[in-house]
Amino acid sequence: MKAAQRLLELAAREGVRACFANPGTSEMHLVAALDAVPAIRPVLCLFEGVAAGAADGYGRMAQSPALTLLHLGPGLSNASANLHNAFRAKTPIVSLIGEHATYHRANNPPLASDIASLARPVSAWLKTAAHPRELLTLGQEAIAAARESGPAALVLPADVAWSEEEPAAAPAVRSAHTACDITSLDDAARALGPNSVLLLGGRLLSQEACAAAERIGERSGVLVLIETFPARVRRAGAGAGLKRLPYLSEMASAVLANAQTLILAGAAHPVAFFALPGRPEQLAPAQARVIELVAPGADPEHALRALAETTKASKPAVRRLAAPPARPATNGVIDPGALAQCIAAMLPADAIVCDESNTAGLYCYEAAADAAPHDWLTLTGGSIGIGLPLAVGAAIACPDRRVVALEADGSALYTIQSLWTQAREGLNVTNVILNNGAYAILRLEMMRAGVNQRSEAAAALFDLRRPAIDFCEIARGFGVPSQRVHTPAGLAAALETSFAAEGPSLIEVMLP
Amino acid sequence: MKAAQRLLELAAREGVRACFANPGTSEMHLVAALDAVPAIRPVLCLFEGVAAGAADGYGRMAQSPALTLLHLGPGLSNASANLHNAFRAKTPIVSLIGEHATYHRANNPPLASDIASLARPVSAWLKTAAHPRELLTLGQEAIAAARESGPAALVLPADVAWSEEEPAAAPAVRSAHTACDITSLDDAARALGPNSVLLLGGRLLSQEACAAAERIGERSGVLVLIETFPARVRRAGAGAGLKRLPYLSEMASAVLANAQTLILAGAAHPVAFFALPGRPEQLAPAQARVIELVAPGADPEHALRALAETTKASKPAVRRLAAPPARPATNGVIDPGALAQCIAAMLPADAIVCDESNTAGLYCYEAAADAAPHDWLTLTGGSIGIGLPLAVGAAIACPDRRVVALEADGSALYTIQSLWTQAREGLNVTNVILNNGAYAILRLEMMRAGVNQRSEAAAALFDLRRPAIDFCEIARGFGVPSQRVHTPAGLAAALETSFAAEGPSLIEVMLP
Repeated sequence: MKAAQRLLELAAREGVRACFANPGTSEMHLVAALDAVPAIRPVLCLFEGVAAGAADGYGRMAQSPALTLLHLGPGLSNASANLHNAFRAKTPIVSLIGEHATYHRANNPPLASDIASLARPVSAWLKTAAHPRELLTLGQEAIAAARESGPAALVLPADVAWSEEEPAAAPAVRSAHTACDITSLDDAARALGPNSVLLLGGRLLSQEACAAAERIGERSGVLVLIETFPARVRRAGAGAGLKRLPYLSEMASAVLANAQTLILAGAAHPVAFFALPGRPEQLAPAQARVIELVAPGADPEHALRALAETTKASKPAVRRLAAPPARPATNGVIDPGALAQCIAAMLPADAIVCDESNTAGLYCYEAAADAAPHDWLTLTGGSIGIGLPLAVGAAIACPDRRVVALEADGSALYTIQSLWTQAREGLNVTNVILNNGAYAILRLEMMRAGVNQRSEAAAALFDLRRPAIDFCEIARGFGVPSQRVHTPAGLAAALETSFAAEGPSLIEVMLP
Repeated sequence: MKAAQRLLELAAREGVRACFANPGTSEMHLVAALDAVPAIRPVLCLFEGVAAGAADGYGRMAQSPALTLLHLGPGLSNASANLHNAFRAKTPIVSLIGEHATYHRANNPPLASDIASLARPVSAWLKTAAHPRELLTLGQEAIAAARESGPAALVLPADVAWSEEEPAAAPAVRSAHTACDITSLDDAARALGPNSVLLLGGRLLSQEACAAAERIGERSGVLVLIETFPARVRRAGAGAGLKRLPYLSEMASAVLANAQTLILAGAAHPVAFFALPGRPEQLAPAQARVIELVAPGADPEHALRALAETTKASKPAVRRLAAPPARPATNGVIDPGALAQCIAAMLPADAIVCDESNTAGLYCYEAAADAAPHDWLTLTGGSIGIGLPLAVGAAIACPDRRVVALEADGSALYTIQSLWTQAREGLNVTNVILNNGAYAILRLEMMRAGVNQRSEAAAALFDLRRPAIDFCEIARGFGVPSQRVHTPAGLAAALETSFAAEGPSLIEVMLP
């Protein structure tokens, strides 16, 4: 039996169920070994950026790693932007990166490059299998590291993969379940109050974590916020209304202006997304005391429950009964408010929203607080082109749930090939493309940066209307049915149709 | 005046004329500065992989660097696969990579990553501007390095770009013209003969270089070959018929089997693209003597002319008058032979062929030896997704010439967004998509690797027909007119129509 097969069998035993792949010659033996390991579903992606984003979506929903199969340095490079997002989300992913045979590297063939240098910035764990003996040990380590810390990269030379040599058995390493760090619990409990902010984050904000945080806020008066770009928030009843820290640094600073204490529960210390001339890059007041209740990226649920106990806030909060959002029936333009109302009103129960809506979808998250229960996934690392791939992976992880990709036009075009994998695998994804014909976020950022507003180069470089892009035709080209809508009523009808049908579809929302 | 503008003015003085961009917030001041430097044409690409491939196409044709404008680590990552190809081709490119403000990096904002680690494997030169004082010096260095050695990467923190501080004037560095290394000339001259092979390569194989090599071959009996994947070959009359070293290692080994001496003129020592079980990775016989007439990547024209002189082969060879290829008029299927004949017969004078046709276009290069004069560009680094971007850049460099992208379906889908930039800029590109519904090269490689031929996983992962992809619809979605052809006669008619029209078009060639 070849080492490639032993490695895949190990992965299957460890619970790996999907492999997002765009293989090449150096991965042939891994491809062939997939036949012998039917527990792992191979999913072909037309571009490695799709594979990486899909593995991210899968990992966020399954809370267990999928594989990616990448072809040497260039395949990894293509995956790297979305691996960056996964690295920031700490999503469990194991990337198998094919490499030239160990004895061929010194020949410097055309596809050779320094894979480790390319992989290091986007990997929580990185090793190269230099010999078949160590392959299973490294495979075991990679899976454990992915569960613990995020994307793991195992570089696999072709001659190691095709070797028949008996590898050493993998040690029975088990990923230690991350114990929440609650040493600061007493500190945090004493600091709760109207002059404090409790900032939530981490790989998954569960319904219980959100509900506990909301109760803490109601009892103590502490301002509870979720980090700006959370990996995944489960929103169902109590806690679904928690707001996120705003993206714009001037708004975020204003929200945090009165914080004397900042309690971090799974979130990193809040900083500006970009530094801009004359604007602060630290968002909290300089004199604010910081208490790290839970380390960045760790699961805060346990600590938040404990904090709720100490504050006598352990009884379930009474959820304010908001009226469910009304389905819009107007024939006006689709402005951000109408879009948000429409999404909130139509979202089916247990939907998974992959949100890369950027400026156009600004109000969707808050509007959906009173929608049917759902999960919300965001662009964690600022590297655009993740929404459609994320939807691929989420749909593979959760085949019985509807996935809604809320997707800005410019970002969609980075990884538009995702549509084909959705069609091929028959995934229940509703792709909502928000077509405003521009990189609108950049117009806003140009203004904030205090740069010449009448720049002709900027006007040209932020424009997507010359020529206009027809997403409906592109979708059909990839085998996904599509339609275009211009009004809130039209959007509601299109969403209803899409949610009722099996398989993917695309709705091109024409924005004013 | 901001440092960003000073840098672009320096670039314009040094002959930079194009900037392939997908900017973000950290590059705002560079974008705005483009207004003040009209000599540099900004070209928006929907994905950084397009920008990098376009800069490669531009650099190969102009033999002078264009800029790319990339957004932090992720923007660079997206560009990296095509930068790998440019690195292998030694194409002059200067990438300006926006970075967080120097004082913001320690805050580790979401888009932060180790840009240098990502850039190093694909850069012939790499530096970060730590202070505005050094910006012009580094800009000058980067441009000189790009001309000399290939892709240069200048990492530009936002606060350096927006600084008003007076930079030090750039030293009047001039790129030294690469003198050809002809110390081995006598050696090479003595070794010429039927038991030797003269292997040509380098950034550009000029018509004069090819003609001189052909003369040397005719006089001395040496076997003259061009490296497997040359960056650019000018083919016009004498020398146009030189063959390339085959891609398949078993074929390449057979061609080189009798070589007692290998004379390298701009080409690297020939090695297998991939190592495979039981196959040699060295292509020349182990005992062959190697003479490096010109270093890999350097221009061999001067040395080849000198070698021709020493061998008394300086008189122009009489070019065999081959009949020009006949335009096919048949209505059968388009097999590789018919495709090659059609391309060769229809190619307009001075066309630029961007060849990423992989298996389907295997015979096109040889068939075009007797076509009208043209340039042929290939996939130098094995990283697929370069053909359509290469065509963008070649068309911008040479607006009066017709560019023909010979493009395999699987490779086209990596950077299909290129079509939009072709439409936007009105580029004279004929995109010939060879649709065989498969990663056909991988089927071949699987067989060569000696792996199970009946692998179900492989059959699935190499298949692009489930569902079928409609390139015509995708092209229309991006604003490029398109048509599908099934026969040689249909292809010839479609090519004729495309060549007669201004602007881009796409021909989807349905292969059996």
